[in-house]
Amino acid sequence: MKTNNVRAAWREGKAVASAWLHIPTAYTAEICAGAGFDVITIDMQHGPVDYQNAVDMIIAMNGSGVTPFVRVPWNEPTMVQRVLDGGAQGIICPMVNNRAECERFVGACKYPPLGYRSNGAYRAARVYGNDYMSGANDFVIAMAMVETREAFEKLDEILDTPGLDAIFVGPSDLSISMYGVAAADHSTAPMLGHIEEIARRAKAKGIPAGLYTLAPEYAKRAIGMGYQFVTCAGDDGLLAAAFKAAAQGIKG
Amino acid sequence: MKTNNVRAAWREGKAVASAWLHIPTAYTAEICAGAGFDVITIDMQHGPVDYQNAVDMIIAMNGSGVTPFVRVPWNEPTMVQRVLDGGAQGIICPMVNNRAECERFVGACKYPPLGYRSNGAYRAARVYGNDYMSGANDFVIAMAMVETREAFEKLDEILDTPGLDAIFVGPSDLSISMYGVAAADHSTAPMLGHIEEIARRAKAKGIPAGLYTLAPEYAKRAIGMGYQFVTCAGDDGLLAAAFKAAAQGIKG
Amino acid sequence: MKTNNVRAAWREGKAVASAWLHIPTAYTAEICAGAGFDVITIDMQHGPVDYQNAVDMIIAMNGSGVTPFVRVPWNEPTMVQRVLDGGAQGIICPMVNNRAECERFVGACKYPPLGYRSNGAYRAARVYGNDYMSGANDFVIAMAMVETREAFEKLDEILDTPGLDAIFVGPSDLSISMYGVAAADHSTAPMLGHIEEIARRAKAKGIPAGLYTLAPEYAKRAIGMGYQFVTCAGDDGLLAAAFKAAAQGIKG
Amino acid sequence: MKTNNVRAAWREGKAVASAWLHIPTAYTAEICAGAGFDVITIDMQHGPVDYQNAVDMIIAMNGSGVTPFVRVPWNEPTMVQRVLDGGAQGIICPMVNNRAECERFVGACKYPPLGYRSNGAYRAARVYGNDYMSGANDFVIAMAMVETREAFEKLDEILDTPGLDAIFVGPSDLSISMYGVAAADHSTAPMLGHIEEIARRAKAKGIPAGLYTLAPEYAKRAIGMGYQFVTCAGDDGLLAAAFKAAAQGIKG
Amino acid sequence: MKTNNVRAAWREGKAVASAWLHIPTAYTAEICAGAGFDVITIDMQHGPVDYQNAVDMIIAMNGSGVTPFVRVPWNEPTMVQRVLDGGAQGIICPMVNNRAECERFVGACKYPPLGYRSNGAYRAARVYGNDYMSGANDFVIAMAMVETREAFEKLDEILDTPGLDAIFVGPSDLSISMYGVAAADHSTAPMLGHIEEIARRAKAKGIPAGLYTLAPEYAKRAIGMGYQFVTCAGDDGLLAAAFKAAAQGIKG
Amino acid sequence: MKTNNVRAAWREGKAVASAWLHIPTAYTAEICAGAGFDVITIDMQHGPVDYQNAVDMIIAMNGSGVTPFVRVPWNEPTMVQRVLDGGAQGIICPMVNNRAECERFVGACKYPPLGYRSNGAYRAARVYGNDYMSGANDFVIAMAMVETREAFEKLDEILDTPGLDAIFVGPSDLSISMYGVAAADHSTAPMLGHIEEIARRAKAKGIPAGLYTLAPEYAKRAIGMGYQFVTCAGDDGLLAAAFKAAAQGIKG
Repeated sequence: MKTNNVRAAWREGKAVASAWLHIPTAYTAEICAGAGFDVITIDMQHGPVDYQNAVDMIIAMNGSGVTPFVRVPWNEPTMVQRVLDGGAQGIICPMVNNRAECERFVGACKYPPLGYRSNGAYRAARVYGNDYMSGANDFVIAMAMVETREAFEKLDEILDTPGLDAIFVGPSDLSISMYGVAAADHSTAPMLGHIEEIARRAKAKGIPAGLYTLAPEYAKRAIGMGYQFVTCAGDDGLLAAAFKAAAQGIKG
Repeated sequence: MKTNNVRAAWREGKAVASAWLHIPTAYTAEICAGAGFDVITIDMQHGPVDYQNAVDMIIAMNGSGVTPFVRVPWNEPTMVQRVLDGGAQGIICPMVNNRAECERFVGACKYPPLGYRSNGAYRAARVYGNDYMSGANDFVIAMAMVETREAFEKLDEILDTPGLDAIFVGPSDLSISMYGVAAADHSTAPMLGHIEEIARRAKAKGIPAGLYTLAPEYAKRAIGMGYQFVTCAGDDGLLAAAFKAAAQGIKG
Repeated sequence: MKTNNVRAAWREGKAVASAWLHIPTAYTAEICAGAGFDVITIDMQHGPVDYQNAVDMIIAMNGSGVTPFVRVPWNEPTMVQRVLDGGAQGIICPMVNNRAECERFVGACKYPPLGYRSNGAYRAARVYGNDYMSGANDFVIAMAMVETREAFEKLDEILDTPGLDAIFVGPSDLSISMYGVAAADHSTAPMLGHIEEIARRAKAKGIPAGLYTLAPEYAKRAIGMGYQFVTCAGDDGLLAAAFKAAAQGIKG
Repeated sequence: MKTNNVRAAWREGKAVASAWLHIPTAYTAEICAGAGFDVITIDMQHGPVDYQNAVDMIIAMNGSGVTPFVRVPWNEPTMVQRVLDGGAQGIICPMVNNRAECERFVGACKYPPLGYRSNGAYRAARVYGNDYMSGANDFVIAMAMVETREAFEKLDEILDTPGLDAIFVGPSDLSISMYGVAAADHSTAPMLGHIEEIARRAKAKGIPAGLYTLAPEYAKRAIGMGYQFVTCAGDDGLLAAAFKAAAQGIKG
Repeated sequence: MKTNNVRAAWREGKAVASAWLHIPTAYTAEICAGAGFDVITIDMQHGPVDYQNAVDMIIAMNGSGVTPFVRVPWNEPTMVQRVLDGGAQGIICPMVNNRAECERFVGACKYPPLGYRSNGAYRAARVYGNDYMSGANDFVIAMAMVETREAFEKLDEILDTPGLDAIFVGPSDLSISMYGVAAADHSTAPMLGHIEEIARRAKAKGIPAGLYTLAPEYAKRAIGMGYQFVTCAGDDGLLAAAFKAAAQGIKG
Repeated sequence: MKTNNVRAAWREGKAVASAWLHIPTAYTAEICAGAGFDVITIDMQHGPVDYQNAVDMIIAMNGSGVTPFVRVPWNEPTMVQRVLDGGAQGIICPMVNNRAECERFVGACKYPPLGYRSNGAYRAARVYGNDYMSGANDFVIAMAMVETREAFEKLDEILDTPGLDAIFVGPSDLSISMYGVAAADHSTAPMLGHIEEIARRAKAKGIPAGLYTLAPEYAKRAIGMGYQFVTCAGDDGLLAAAFKAAAQGIKG
């Protein structure tokens, strides 16, 4: 069976960098697959990507060596299982607030007896190996988002959930949940302290942690804090910035 | 009836800057519409955009003030007319080599007696005014690409074609046509000389000229030469560069 | 930040008229945007519209001044949040039966501390203003459907839900729930009495009420009852009727 | 092999009524298929329908008894053959001006030795019978548009083209071609006279004639003139009118 | 109102055979509709089919006499209701483990007072008859999947759920749930015994049972056991096998 | 720059086997890519594949080692160039009847001075190497269809066209062209003789020849005749046969 390169990197203590896709085309996903990221995360929560396009985008990463992740729209078992069947190797799940919610999420990612995932990996089994089902629970990465005050307070019970592979910190929602919409800037104290603390506590439990980041400098800083999964700005944000720069460069 | 802002700018001797789109989504076209360009050109020749998506992309520019152009795939009357019906305000047509080919192109853009465009502007008439048909020949911009040795040699007969509104220089194809594939770098003599000459000769005939450019600096230089329509790199190129920079910024 | 015109109209005590869309194309949504409605509601519950098309349809309303609403398929937080991120300014939620269900719905529409909406309004923030997040809870309209006997009986607790902006009466489902499938005709007593009562009780609480209507005359009558949001027949119904009339006009 | 109901009706001297579709969905095509028309014409010339959608729309007419026609975008053999393969039973071809152009069009509709259509009716052969190829030249209706001064002047040579099954008059383009854009109103003399003359001359040659009409009354009048194929307003036009009436009915 | 042919067959004690579709096109669904199956099931759980495509696929079965079923992605009321509105005549629902879950599922399939399905069968009512709503509870088939140890143990309470029309055994998930991933081969004892027992117990309660089967021989054997709904391999599986056979036939 | 494996095989005197795709999804193209064919030909002439889907299907072959070909709809330069830009490595062009038509076709496939292909290989240059343009004329395979009496009679002038890489025999159209529709069975004399003669004459000129075949046995026989490119039945045909066999297997 195929190896999940992210898990392999984590086992060696390395960090991985992920692109973040909102543009719903196989064409742009293929462009991204050649850019040098370790991971491409298709964001179905805050971007206009339907399921069929998500699968086509994963298909477009064929042969590139990049590892496909999906952020599902919500902690519901339906889309988690569908994108895994379609070939996602990791799932990022929003708003996992406590042990029960984390079990619900992890359960959707894993076959019995660890979870309740249904057998029928129509594409994953074809492309990752005929022994997919027997290896899938180790292969697939279940990554719960820690992004609310409740999740922060219940971090340990989340981290202890059997089958949970990693956590992913959504600093913006976490900041809003803890300090209100006006405090959405999470790059200052006390948010930075919380962000560092989460990495520390996750490491203590042997659970790799990821952080949503928008700029390379900040991503590197996050790696320095112990984060092992960092992101770049979304494709739509990068494109908007490039368009503006080009228009200003000509007109300005 | 609505004014074609590009024609208005040209009448005042101004130059316009155009974005260049290959990604076939209304979503990214709308992002582009807010970036500050005067024009957005949907490139159907060298990008994966089918007709329905082209129309959806034009729809996505609603209310933005940007002027939609389309580069059609080839000098065939079919797509020229279809995108005009769908709301394109300007057409860039590849490989117009001589007077006969230019008449064929211009004819597809204009209603009789100037041309042979068929009446049925199903969307253009709805969004640009009920008097669209009577004003369309003045409204729509027919822009012929000069990008072969033959076109360069027959520039005057092309420029004199009744109804032709502008020309657009494709420097890469022109360079290949004149000096071969190995000479595709058109930023050196003698190509720069030809590029300047075309602008000069078009201006002498009162025909605005455009140049395909990839970088803001070069676009500005083109404006200095007299070009009144310049472009930025395509959305796919901008995105690929931004992805690479982000990946290297984190990993490098 | 942009103003929500529906909220503004309601503040002045006015009623608004909404179109109702099932046909999943940006093309027809743009046609509708020019027809004179205050609101266009994309019906994802009882029509064949997937998420990407819903967003493209909202994009097609750009520049028209019409306010985009979405009826989500069910009282689940996923689609509520996704269409808000994509630019819906109001959400109509089916089958809100009691306070707990109403809180679940309203929570998905509003950022903390009022609700649990996740930050990431990828399109709404771009088109409605950079301060979208701070103003969104006031901007977005959460409209709960009252369409079951339980909801009718628990109307006050629903109306008192913090953050609820409006209610919307589904007379057909309400009639079925109260009197059975055979009693689906809601234009006679006692249904009309219930419909009037709901408007009265909502007004007493300062909550605007809407009613699903199919014909202009009935819509006007509803406004007379105090309803401030009324609808026309769906695009598919209008089209079917127009086709039939045309066929009979020629053949009959 | 299946019978082409339009040819059968024509043989009995009857006229047929056609719907006219621009909205590119199987969903609306199916709605139209139940409305009572004899024919549904998918208009690929002046509407946003790509090929795959055209085929899906034809598929949606299954089992309804309606006969699918396509107006192709232009007199080019490519789309003529593709929509025939996909199941179109009749082709309306724009801008057929003379005998040579008519032969080019008819040739694309018919297998050798009558024409040059390529064998590979991937869907038509499956749904219309295994003997499709041997009967196709009689089954498929090739209908050339007469809509220019040249075509009007060369009507007889067009009508005499071997294999041509019918003509279709585009009164708007014909009027423009003969009297200019300002004279686009074709409902007055001398256009009405030309329209009557064409029907007469076609009948004299035994060639059924069709007329593009927008209103039932006018369609009936056309039938009275001898036209055997008339149309209703396009789906987009019908929908736009219905939206406007509904909005005004509520607001006005 | 139309008759549900599957229910009619079951009433006569007959078994029906269903195709199983993953390829998301109307084109292939139409091909399948002519192949001789009684039923076509669109599998939205383990295949890449979004809602709009599911409806287009159902539309493509028009006029064929085949009965459209949908396996929904999960036991959530949203998609159950949406595909019923779009014309599904039967719903197969995954992972129904106990009475409460079965009531939740059945409730989404049936109008009050039996269930809580919302009125708005936008397509079903158009194509199956104006009296659809009054007959729908008898027309629509709610088929709960028995595929976990819990469901096996609680089979009787599931079978006794009011409104439940049939059960469907997922032998692979059932085997995994009972004996672990390593025991996924369900064609040996003790799984065969369980499969036979389920058929027996369902029959005793007068509830037709279906079995997921991949090969004709096994499907026939299942019918012999009393199963009245059997399946063939999915379209993607059939296609993959046919491709491999063809490639080996030429190359091997 | 990447190697075209088909050209490499031909240089060694080997034959290649091609799949033949009509189903317009990346999903099924990926399945095909793993089946063991040397080539996958996307048939845009007699199948429902639009351009964007064709590109997505080519993208889905990434990493599989299979070589993507496209049969374009007709001998028009537009689609030839567009699919080459999108990554097709070979073009099969229908109905090439003589030297002039062959030059027109080959010209669209090749950059100057050999042809008139326009520079802008937006995807091909990205995935096949930055030196794509300088190597493209050797990389891309231009394969003209010999499928009419005229082409058969002018075979030598076609074979001598500079830049032509191969020919492809369409036996069905050739048979019809030579002997009429009734003689469409090309598996008997004199057609077999012609088919053998074409292979012989092509070989004498050093031009590899392909034959459209539907069954493995016949494909092998063709290889024995000297053909170096053979095909299997289209995906839709294979699927239809598999569906029928499965239905009969259960029901029959």
